[in-house]
Amino acid sequence: MDAHTYRDWAAGEHSTVILPAGAFEQHGPHLPLGTDAILSSTIAEAVGSRIDAKVAEPLSYGYKSQQKSGGGDHLAGTVSLDAAALIAQARCILAGFLRQGVRNLVVLNGHYENYQFLYEAADLALADTGAGAGRADGSGPTVLLLSYWDYVSEDTLAAVYPEGFPGWDIEHGGVLETSLMLHLRPELVAMDRAVSHPPADLPRFDRLPVVSSRTPDTGCLSAPDGSSAEKGRLLYEQVAADLGADLAAELHLPR
Amino acid sequence: MDAHTYRDWAAGEHSTVILPAGAFEQHGPHLPLGTDAILSSTIAEAVGSRIDAKVAEPLSYGYKSQQKSGGGDHLAGTVSLDAAALIAQARCILAGFLRQGVRNLVVLNGHYENYQFLYEAADLALADTGAGAGRADGSGPTVLLLSYWDYVSEDTLAAVYPEGFPGWDIEHGGVLETSLMLHLRPELVAMDRAVSHPPADLPRFDRLPVVSSRTPDTGCLSAPDGSSAEKGRLLYEQVAADLGADLAAELHLPR
Amino acid sequence: MDAHTYRDWAAGEHSTVILPAGAFEQHGPHLPLGTDAILSSTIAEAVGSRIDAKVAEPLSYGYKSQQKSGGGDHLAGTVSLDAAALIAQARCILAGFLRQGVRNLVVLNGHYENYQFLYEAADLALADTGAGAGRADGSGPTVLLLSYWDYVSEDTLAAVYPEGFPGWDIEHGGVLETSLMLHLRPELVAMDRAVSHPPADLPRFDRLPVVSSRTPDTGCLSAPDGSSAEKGRLLYEQVAADLGADLAAELHLPR
Amino acid sequence: MDAHTYRDWAAGEHSTVILPAGAFEQHGPHLPLGTDAILSSTIAEAVGSRIDAKVAEPLSYGYKSQQKSGGGDHLAGTVSLDAAALIAQARCILAGFLRQGVRNLVVLNGHYENYQFLYEAADLALADTGAGAGRADGSGPTVLLLSYWDYVSEDTLAAVYPEGFPGWDIEHGGVLETSLMLHLRPELVAMDRAVSHPPADLPRFDRLPVVSSRTPDTGCLSAPDGSSAEKGRLLYEQVAADLGADLAAELHLPR
Amino acid sequence: MDAHTYRDWAAGEHSTVILPAGAFEQHGPHLPLGTDAILSSTIAEAVGSRIDAKVAEPLSYGYKSQQKSGGGDHLAGTVSLDAAALIAQARCILAGFLRQGVRNLVVLNGHYENYQFLYEAADLALADTGAGAGRADGSGPTVLLLSYWDYVSEDTLAAVYPEGFPGWDIEHGGVLETSLMLHLRPELVAMDRAVSHPPADLPRFDRLPVVSSRTPDTGCLSAPDGSSAEKGRLLYEQVAADLGADLAAELHLPR
Amino acid sequence: MDAHTYRDWAAGEHSTVILPAGAFEQHGPHLPLGTDAILSSTIAEAVGSRIDAKVAEPLSYGYKSQQKSGGGDHLAGTVSLDAAALIAQARCILAGFLRQGVRNLVVLNGHYENYQFLYEAADLALADTGAGAGRADGSGPTVLLLSYWDYVSEDTLAAVYPEGFPGWDIEHGGVLETSLMLHLRPELVAMDRAVSHPPADLPRFDRLPVVSSRTPDTGCLSAPDGSSAEKGRLLYEQVAADLGADLAAELHLPR
Repeated sequence: MDAHTYRDWAAGEHSTVILPAGAFEQHGPHLPLGTDAILSSTIAEAVGSRIDAKVAEPLSYGYKSQQKSGGGDHLAGTVSLDAAALIAQARCILAGFLRQGVRNLVVLNGHYENYQFLYEAADLALADTGAGAGRADGSGPTVLLLSYWDYVSEDTLAAVYPEGFPGWDIEHGGVLETSLMLHLRPELVAMDRAVSHPPADLPRFDRLPVVSSRTPDTGCLSAPDGSSAEKGRLLYEQVAADLGADLAAELHLPR
Repeated sequence: MDAHTYRDWAAGEHSTVILPAGAFEQHGPHLPLGTDAILSSTIAEAVGSRIDAKVAEPLSYGYKSQQKSGGGDHLAGTVSLDAAALIAQARCILAGFLRQGVRNLVVLNGHYENYQFLYEAADLALADTGAGAGRADGSGPTVLLLSYWDYVSEDTLAAVYPEGFPGWDIEHGGVLETSLMLHLRPELVAMDRAVSHPPADLPRFDRLPVVSSRTPDTGCLSAPDGSSAEKGRLLYEQVAADLGADLAAELHLPR
Repeated sequence: MDAHTYRDWAAGEHSTVILPAGAFEQHGPHLPLGTDAILSSTIAEAVGSRIDAKVAEPLSYGYKSQQKSGGGDHLAGTVSLDAAALIAQARCILAGFLRQGVRNLVVLNGHYENYQFLYEAADLALADTGAGAGRADGSGPTVLLLSYWDYVSEDTLAAVYPEGFPGWDIEHGGVLETSLMLHLRPELVAMDRAVSHPPADLPRFDRLPVVSSRTPDTGCLSAPDGSSAEKGRLLYEQVAADLGADLAAELHLPR
Repeated sequence: MDAHTYRDWAAGEHSTVILPAGAFEQHGPHLPLGTDAILSSTIAEAVGSRIDAKVAEPLSYGYKSQQKSGGGDHLAGTVSLDAAALIAQARCILAGFLRQGVRNLVVLNGHYENYQFLYEAADLALADTGAGAGRADGSGPTVLLLSYWDYVSEDTLAAVYPEGFPGWDIEHGGVLETSLMLHLRPELVAMDRAVSHPPADLPRFDRLPVVSSRTPDTGCLSAPDGSSAEKGRLLYEQVAADLGADLAAELHLPR
Repeated sequence: MDAHTYRDWAAGEHSTVILPAGAFEQHGPHLPLGTDAILSSTIAEAVGSRIDAKVAEPLSYGYKSQQKSGGGDHLAGTVSLDAAALIAQARCILAGFLRQGVRNLVVLNGHYENYQFLYEAADLALADTGAGAGRADGSGPTVLLLSYWDYVSEDTLAAVYPEGFPGWDIEHGGVLETSLMLHLRPELVAMDRAVSHPPADLPRFDRLPVVSSRTPDTGCLSAPDGSSAEKGRLLYEQVAADLGADLAAELHLPR
Repeated sequence: MDAHTYRDWAAGEHSTVILPAGAFEQHGPHLPLGTDAILSSTIAEAVGSRIDAKVAEPLSYGYKSQQKSGGGDHLAGTVSLDAAALIAQARCILAGFLRQGVRNLVVLNGHYENYQFLYEAADLALADTGAGAGRADGSGPTVLLLSYWDYVSEDTLAAVYPEGFPGWDIEHGGVLETSLMLHLRPELVAMDRAVSHPPADLPRFDRLPVVSSRTPDTGCLSAPDGSSAEKGRLLYEQVAADLGADLAAELHLPR
């Protein structure tokens, strides 16, 4: 979009910007390093087209990969931001859109480890722009923050994992991400390099420095066995529909 | 403990310090503001006595209360740290113990919102003291990070919530925290002020500024109906036992 | 206190919170590591009961121990915050109370090294909450900052040190702190472990890195010889009375 | 690229990563907001293919637009990072690649205002990873930093600006950027929306707050009159060739 | 100036403070380390006397010397601030003057590497004091930022470099700085120690860590051959006159 | 000093740099704003000439003036650094000298409020350069920190204040500073503007925001009555002699 078109659009009553957040993180031998940003951006586009929102350039680098959700920050291919850098970056961007009159900001997260730091960024950006306390009638600028997987329905989970859902914690490079990528960016998926292995068996604590042997050699916390483009299509369409509907209702957007 | 006793102890092969993390946060009309720090400290003492670990002064103030896990940071009685302050504080304390030769640090969290910031603090403290990369044989200093509720067993949950567990997300000022406090610090609980109400119905996103009407008037996300000291005793003893056993096994501590 | 009681109280015309500040610092072989926080908290309670002020959870960790006032940060048992961490923590807490409508904040310091960093925190917290410039009629929120020993009277000093006061600079683990602890928390004092030695002879400069031989082996800068619970009671009661009276007069509090 | 391929590649003797840096900044009515990141990324790809370097995800948001080089940060469509955020982000990313064994990092800048902050990031990242002092034989990890326009030759300038080069300072949304975009991403250029106007006449100082009337209404500092895809092709090919050759020579890369 | 005189002056309609910025940086064997601060301060005095502005204490330490403009930060005699320190210092000072009612601040830079960090400081200081957005009629407080060499005229350049101007980039310890010092502070110049050598031949990129052999042994990027007090006088008087006139016009100052 | 002379000198076994620290702070109607930096610099020069130490450019801006030691930061003429800025600046400068091989650094403070922040800077600078832990034989780089008034002897005090020393806390713009300035820089002192008034009567706490009426109208905390150049000479010579002797002894410098 050019700047003059943007200016007119931002002044509108319902101007909404979606900021996708991802990571630059190993996703095993079969998925690209940018998987999280690709997925959050693509889902943001799908949602944006439903609620007439614009999608901003994604946050392409995310918080440090943790062993229990991403295999660990020590793995080759993972280049991460620390907390201060991620908070500062997201804070500036959110405050920038708020200063330009955008009414609603939706941070659409695709990398588990990011979430709390994005929350802090949103809180600080609202304070920076004088909108932190909100308005009595709730009419002021609003920031929503969510992770796209929180919109995967029970029905979808049942269809994607017919033998039972193993849990979000080990869904890294597994069936969900692989299926979504097979549907959305099949040219970036190398299923011939995918490796079958049991799901990672991780403790209830985080340990630092990481005991690297706890992460499967692939870097995936569960294997992509059973992934398919069809499952990806189902996930993508269901999430986009439900997320779009939820945002439209919350933000009183015309559809 | 005095300093000279401490010095001898810290030099030991198995010296382990537990750092409890809490918050200064409203917990409804019936629980004290310091509930999270009281619970994490008390459980830390119980665990410490099992594995011969020392318990450090707790982090008494925590990260901003979020509506979906603590009712929101706007509520009277909640005084919070921002991300930078919490990270900086925990980082200095962890690095301080590491510099003094303590072998194992266990951060025992009792306030949901703290977790990721404590993780960052642990990672930075290890880097600050040159222990970030670890040793090839895993023999260097170690930091473990956990939230105590991750050690509540399925059996205990079934006993505490005979009509079904409503989910960790709305366990704020509810049956778990109230029962634990009734067992451990009954003089601080005012069950006559407890209010019965349906559990909070919260969206899948975080919204900022908070729509305050989404938090029940009590500030609790679920009511403490059915809490009892007996349930508290069960929770306390099961968690302390399992957590102690897990730490002893992980850290090769004599028991 | 529970949150609902707190809310009503904070809205009052005279709501005053005392924030004690201590340290986690070696105090020789006979006093506990948390001495500074114990003393500032206990005195805060005594003052609070006189002026109807509430005492917040103390700052349990303090700024780096300096050789000339605390023996040095290199000593076993001392775990400290750096300047940024202490300022950030105190700033957030003070701003939090100010945002909730508390009228008066009193920071009651018990660790010499903290003072200037607490001052910075108070100044920044007032600016953060828009109260930095004050009101023309002096009616806005107020922060007072003090160290409790500044309220020890000449008469008390003469009684506590009948052979002459050696100076505040070497009062670390000496007669004042030991006597106060003997009066207030005798179960934490091990007088049988106390060691008699001449007062430390320290230069007029701070030297970094520390020349460790300048600190007596005990870690105390003067010996606790002559300490007694009776002296502790005198110190405690005189300071609480004078400090309470001074605060009441300054803040126009009913007594 | 997937992580396992990356791991093998990074271990090579000549592994080189190019990090493009852009901005999210208005570029008048005829160019997209992401022009700077598009150009630096595209040129990075062209250079990378010549010297067998990998191109990392670009920095999509840049430092505040200054009136004398970008029209000003107050203009609709410009969303910027402050100095701390940009430095922190680039520092983490550069340090991350260095920790993974990448031998050479090339920061390829496409937004004038970024340069000094990227320099600071590179200096800090080298220090963070222990490579700040370099090795006596110059064999350690290396960071190069450059802006692509510094490789436009005199001959190219003469061909692109047959009536005389007006100066880099007002080349914002002008002939160079427009021609490059017409060659590389014509579908994003709206020449029918381009406006002809005299070049901006700006003072020798920066003034803050900005006197907005000094920026032409278009937001461009010079008009895109005379831009063409052919000029863009010339610029692109000459810069890629010369920059590739310079990097290969400096870094002793095989070609 | 004493404080009471200052107070009356600051309240005036045209109160203007010039803040000179320099560096503590090697300038070859013939010039003092403080050359940049001396030159910016002296020029500031000359300008100040023309437009009735006060000159504040200079920033005596500057941003890290870069090889392409100052020879490099590794050279003996160069002691520098990092970005955060320089921004923080200048931000506080500028905000301090703004809070005291000074109408116009002029940052007069004499060390190339400082510029962008001073810009950030000015932007943040205006935001800190609520003057960031400016006033509709442009009547609010103003910060101007400039480097003195941007006011050297073409005529002066031609006179100072009769054989052609080699470019600002290698003017470090060369004819311009040496001539100015010979005119203004001849007692600090040791022309007998000056060394003749060809100008430095530096690449188009910055390389870190620095390849130290690219900086001439003197530390100067061009030799001071042909410097004279007369050239210094010409430079000094022309710059002071033009800069004074430009500031007076911009700030509507009486002359 | 030029850079080449400096390089040779810094490599010497006893190279010592004194860094004076001052402030830009009102000192009543009769003393200049830069009094603290002038005094610390001048005393540093006197000491430096005795112990063959070099004096670095002073820190000309200091920490916020506090009412109890400097009248308050709200007074016209006082422009201050916050804690972060002062620490960052001093840290970079001290680390810079350490990296260049200077053996001993002496921070000579002339503004009470600076002290703790300079301590933090010294501690961090030593850690930054790997010298934080010191060497077993005490032979590594050393930083000393002191305030010059700590070297005023009892005899001198008795001579300067024949009617009794009122205390260091209210020595701001009083007899000590005025006498020193009358001896060292009489042309900057306007004794005809000096005002006689009783010493300030200040509470034992710091109050923020400041109650401005507690600072005398002059901005001085005690009047300069009885100041003389002769007293200044006595102060200056005694302090320089004793401080020089103390530093020489501590640092094993030849005299």
